[in-house]
Amino acid sequence: MAYCIDLNSDVGESFGVYRLGMDDEVLKYVTSANIACGYHAGDPLVMERTVEIALKNGVAIGAHPGYPDIMGFGRRDLKATPAEVKAYVKYQIGALYAFAVSKGTRIQHVKVHGAMYNMAAKDYGLARAIAEAILEVDSQMIMLAPAGSQMISAAEDVGITAAEEFFADRAYKEDGTLVPREVAGAVIEDEDVALKRVIRMLQSGRVETITGKDISIKANSICVHGDNPKALELIKKIRDGLEKNNIKVVPLSQFVSMI
Amino acid sequence: MAYCIDLNSDVGESFGVYRLGMDDEVLKYVTSANIACGYHAGDPLVMERTVEIALKNGVAIGAHPGYPDIMGFGRRDLKATPAEVKAYVKYQIGALYAFAVSKGTRIQHVKVHGAMYNMAAKDYGLARAIAEAILEVDSQMIMLAPAGSQMISAAEDVGITAAEEFFADRAYKEDGTLVPREVAGAVIEDEDVALKRVIRMLQSGRVETITGKDISIKANSICVHGDNPKALELIKKIRDGLEKNNIKVVPLSQFVSMI
Amino acid sequence: MAYCIDLNSDVGESFGVYRLGMDDEVLKYVTSANIACGYHAGDPLVMERTVEIALKNGVAIGAHPGYPDIMGFGRRDLKATPAEVKAYVKYQIGALYAFAVSKGTRIQHVKVHGAMYNMAAKDYGLARAIAEAILEVDSQMIMLAPAGSQMISAAEDVGITAAEEFFADRAYKEDGTLVPREVAGAVIEDEDVALKRVIRMLQSGRVETITGKDISIKANSICVHGDNPKALELIKKIRDGLEKNNIKVVPLSQFVSMI
Amino acid sequence: MAYCIDLNSDVGESFGVYRLGMDDEVLKYVTSANIACGYHAGDPLVMERTVEIALKNGVAIGAHPGYPDIMGFGRRDLKATPAEVKAYVKYQIGALYAFAVSKGTRIQHVKVHGAMYNMAAKDYGLARAIAEAILEVDSQMIMLAPAGSQMISAAEDVGITAAEEFFADRAYKEDGTLVPREVAGAVIEDEDVALKRVIRMLQSGRVETITGKDISIKANSICVHGDNPKALELIKKIRDGLEKNNIKVVPLSQFVSMI
Repeated sequence: MAYCIDLNSDVGESFGVYRLGMDDEVLKYVTSANIACGYHAGDPLVMERTVEIALKNGVAIGAHPGYPDIMGFGRRDLKATPAEVKAYVKYQIGALYAFAVSKGTRIQHVKVHGAMYNMAAKDYGLARAIAEAILEVDSQMIMLAPAGSQMISAAEDVGITAAEEFFADRAYKEDGTLVPREVAGAVIEDEDVALKRVIRMLQSGRVETITGKDISIKANSICVHGDNPKALELIKKIRDGLEKNNIKVVPLSQFVSMI
Repeated sequence: MAYCIDLNSDVGESFGVYRLGMDDEVLKYVTSANIACGYHAGDPLVMERTVEIALKNGVAIGAHPGYPDIMGFGRRDLKATPAEVKAYVKYQIGALYAFAVSKGTRIQHVKVHGAMYNMAAKDYGLARAIAEAILEVDSQMIMLAPAGSQMISAAEDVGITAAEEFFADRAYKEDGTLVPREVAGAVIEDEDVALKRVIRMLQSGRVETITGKDISIKANSICVHGDNPKALELIKKIRDGLEKNNIKVVPLSQFVSMI
Repeated sequence: MAYCIDLNSDVGESFGVYRLGMDDEVLKYVTSANIACGYHAGDPLVMERTVEIALKNGVAIGAHPGYPDIMGFGRRDLKATPAEVKAYVKYQIGALYAFAVSKGTRIQHVKVHGAMYNMAAKDYGLARAIAEAILEVDSQMIMLAPAGSQMISAAEDVGITAAEEFFADRAYKEDGTLVPREVAGAVIEDEDVALKRVIRMLQSGRVETITGKDISIKANSICVHGDNPKALELIKKIRDGLEKNNIKVVPLSQFVSMI
Repeated sequence: MAYCIDLNSDVGESFGVYRLGMDDEVLKYVTSANIACGYHAGDPLVMERTVEIALKNGVAIGAHPGYPDIMGFGRRDLKATPAEVKAYVKYQIGALYAFAVSKGTRIQHVKVHGAMYNMAAKDYGLARAIAEAILEVDSQMIMLAPAGSQMISAAEDVGITAAEEFFADRAYKEDGTLVPREVAGAVIEDEDVALKRVIRMLQSGRVETITGKDISIKANSICVHGDNPKALELIKKIRDGLEKNNIKVVPLSQFVSMI
């Protein structure tokens, strides 16, 4: 039996003269790009360039909307209303759409960023606002969200496709959420262990939690980071390891509706 | 013989708690709305609301992109490169597209704002950047620009439709450009005179300049303002006067390709 | 026995072309001005003009720092760290200082705005950050904050002077906090009632809560609003009523250290 | 006879998560720091940290105000009025003042940034606005500006101290202005040549222009850059070379009034 998986990464986070991330390298190995849309990072020139690099590498385009907070990189909780969040997400998806359509492609998926991601994972009102924004702009776009989150529920409720993502290098709690970074053991440093967890999750749908107990997770995408050379090594290792185990690494849109 | 004309106005220029313009009133009388896209004015909630009001009134949706300068309302020359301007225009058109498509409509036209409008009227490089942005995002959109400007030339060169606009309440120079506001006689205060100029321009293609000499102008749209009650009165007077003279007041897209 | 009271109001909240508030009128009747500093509202030109108008009317200058969120007018909770809040408050106090010193005056007080005000009222960490910012920039500045809040405690702890404010047109709970706006009876519409509450509070130190029970409040300043003509009427009524009752209406710095 | 010279560099240009420059290294070798103030680069936390590092190294604090254009890093001409520029400069000086005074120091100098620097060098109206801003906030601050520019004239006219700066690694035209970067020979790549030019300028007041002719320049400060390791090497070389030639490298305020 053949398994498929997507590798997604946040890219296009440079801004003006400020450079961030190793996009040129990362986009050689991932299959879905979450492109910042100018609210928490990115600017029009960066978005255009990032869409071009993604396309050149056959990587699917995704919108990565965040809170309007460049100074805080969209990582700080902002108590915006669901109506505000819905409008912010639409605005940012639209902005990226312009660059995608300019290059003859479309937006495959939407993954919200940082504090918006964390807040909407737990708050159905925000999650619903995001799902509706996607539905109303282009109902063919896939929402990429944490497994078992309120966003996944909201996507089902409004009738858009959702894809669940798994964090290769993070420990999980028994309720399926991530162990917070400040807790010991939250980050899995050993690349081989990280790879084995991904493969086991794909083949058996099971992940061992930080307490040692198994839980069930069936993800369609692995979230990887490209901030530094070490992170890039992990991406390569995971991609390589997956292919050696006969797992196809392809963009979400090529298999996600089959699940 | 029947004449057609469009009435366009800048709307959606409120921002956060700040209110600007009399959009609810203005949108009852114009046929094309130039909606600010968040760079010099407007925000996602304002954009969404403005698209809704326009649609309710049968007004066609237009993007009104400007320089990233809310503090200066996009009215200050900013020496951005053509590549930057092109990307800024795409970004803003895309952002508005999201709200238009959400409501089941599309963007009819693009009219750039303030300093970008004035600079691109004279600078072919900027004008070309704007025309290409329109072409690449949606080649069916009409560029709305001053009669005889570099933007009109650029639109022709890249192969998009352009519409020329006429200012009802402004005096013209012999070269077809506007008399600067600081010159005596630049603004035509008498509403009846303004109306007669519009009707004459439509029926004979001729406008009397500030020097008394006639020049030729064939515009498809009249630019009107809705900042204050007096401006609103002029809009009503023009619309009423046009209809009494059997001139159809309809959105650009209904007649502009026929010219 | 003579009583003194200060009247404070938020001013300088215009931004670029956007006008907000009736500053020219309000500054005729209040004694302390809370001037927005460009993070949630205001801009350098507006700040300069507002300092000038305040001085012309003998009104004391105060800084009114907020979160960096013009789109939300600083009214949305933003989970910034105490270190960030401390630096934001310093930055904004300093910016206003430049305009004050330019006109030969200094900053009398600091009152934080909106969400920062509400959050710091309850959160000692934020309150302490604000108090330290004031101490480190100019320890002679007075912190203006809600009676009995964490900000008052923090001011005492770091050793700066604090002044407590009372809301003339708002109902209080038994714990001394305001009844939220959405609760019936939260806003006191009757101007005569509002005035009587202020005078009673000043003369007896007592306020009747929404439940009918009396609590003790000893405020140094009455917070009034100048957003609309009705609000302006209330300011005049309060000022007039206070003076008729032999209560001196003077800036905080003229009496607050005596308490 | 003893000569004195100051070495100045732009620092504090990081913003939020974005890192720029090698401030920790650069501040070991320069004597005056031009600290970005949040309009074109920098943020309150970065400003605070930069002031601390400068003080630790005995480097004098300077404000480095720019146009409100983070996306363009303040490098794009913005047609702001002199009144706007004056208010922007005051605002930014004030903001930095708060961090300086917090650490028990004051602002030694003001050097405007990027497009504002280039425009005000040639435009007396802008230059005067900047000089007046300095005068009105703290007349003891020194204006640092290009030799022979309109800013130097304006400083003299309003009665503040001005210091002229020399670019070690740039070729000069016969009129005393810099050869534009795009011209061949504009940048002096050879570090030994750059050093020799500085020493000759200091000892003889003469600089050889790109045409081979000598002109007279008497600068008080050498502008150096710290963007990359190579630039840092040049700083070290210049500092070392100056000291070996018995030239004292000290902050402006220690000698500039003597000239």
